[in-house]
Amino acid sequence: MTEAPETPQDPPPYFRAHVFVCCNRRPDGHRRGSCAARGSEALRDYMKVRTKELGLKGVRVNQSGCLDRCEFGPALVIYPEGVWYSPKTREDVDAILQAHLVEGGRAPDLMLTERDVPPPKA
Amino acid sequence: MTEAPETPQDPPPYFRAHVFVCCNRRPDGHRRGSCAARGSEALRDYMKVRTKELGLKGVRVNQSGCLDRCEFGPALVIYPEGVWYSPKTREDVDAILQAHLVEGGRAPDLMLTERDVPPPKA
Repeated sequence: MTEAPETPQDPPPYFRAHVFVCCNRRPDGHRRGSCAARGSEALRDYMKVRTKELGLKGVRVNQSGCLDRCEFGPALVIYPEGVWYSPKTREDVDAILQAHLVEGGRAPDLMLTERDVPPPKA
Repeated sequence: MTEAPETPQDPPPYFRAHVFVCCNRRPDGHRRGSCAARGSEALRDYMKVRTKELGLKGVRVNQSGCLDRCEFGPALVIYPEGVWYSPKTREDVDAILQAHLVEGGRAPDLMLTERDVPPPKA
């Protein structure tokens, strides 16, 4: 029996849901703005607290560097689904937590779509 | 025909592969250590440069906050697969890029497994 070292069985998922909240901050006045300038840091903090309070097991919320969807920020992405959201308020964060992470559905009004792409580079 | 607003078709993946490299830094001497203290920042920089040089389209490399696998760091995770690696050197980063992102396989010797979990809290 030969081994296939390049295609082992992957380990089971380490987190059920892994959320990355862009906390990149660009200088004030940058043409693209940035998620931190749009308030992402406070929303990340709130999401971490609420995730814990809700007792959501296997869910990890992390900050990340620039996710390159600055114009539509604050941007976050939930893996392994690869679903993106843009929460502007704590209520938006609550809606994402409830719909996506508690109920396993979506919060469609807060989702980014394939049309939300950065403009061409200047 | 009724709408099902909570279960829309998800948009297509925004990135083919999304890599998060833990760059959390704890104070020197912390019992868990940290990925940054284990050299993750330089490896992140190198991975970004090499990803660009290799012309890997649809691949994004980001830093992240603490991924909570500090003892086995530097830790990185590639989504949507959810496969974790621990590269110690530039050569390890090259091996991950080639095996996983160029060839679509795995670099098994560098992967974290389900056995690589933090010790119980003190």
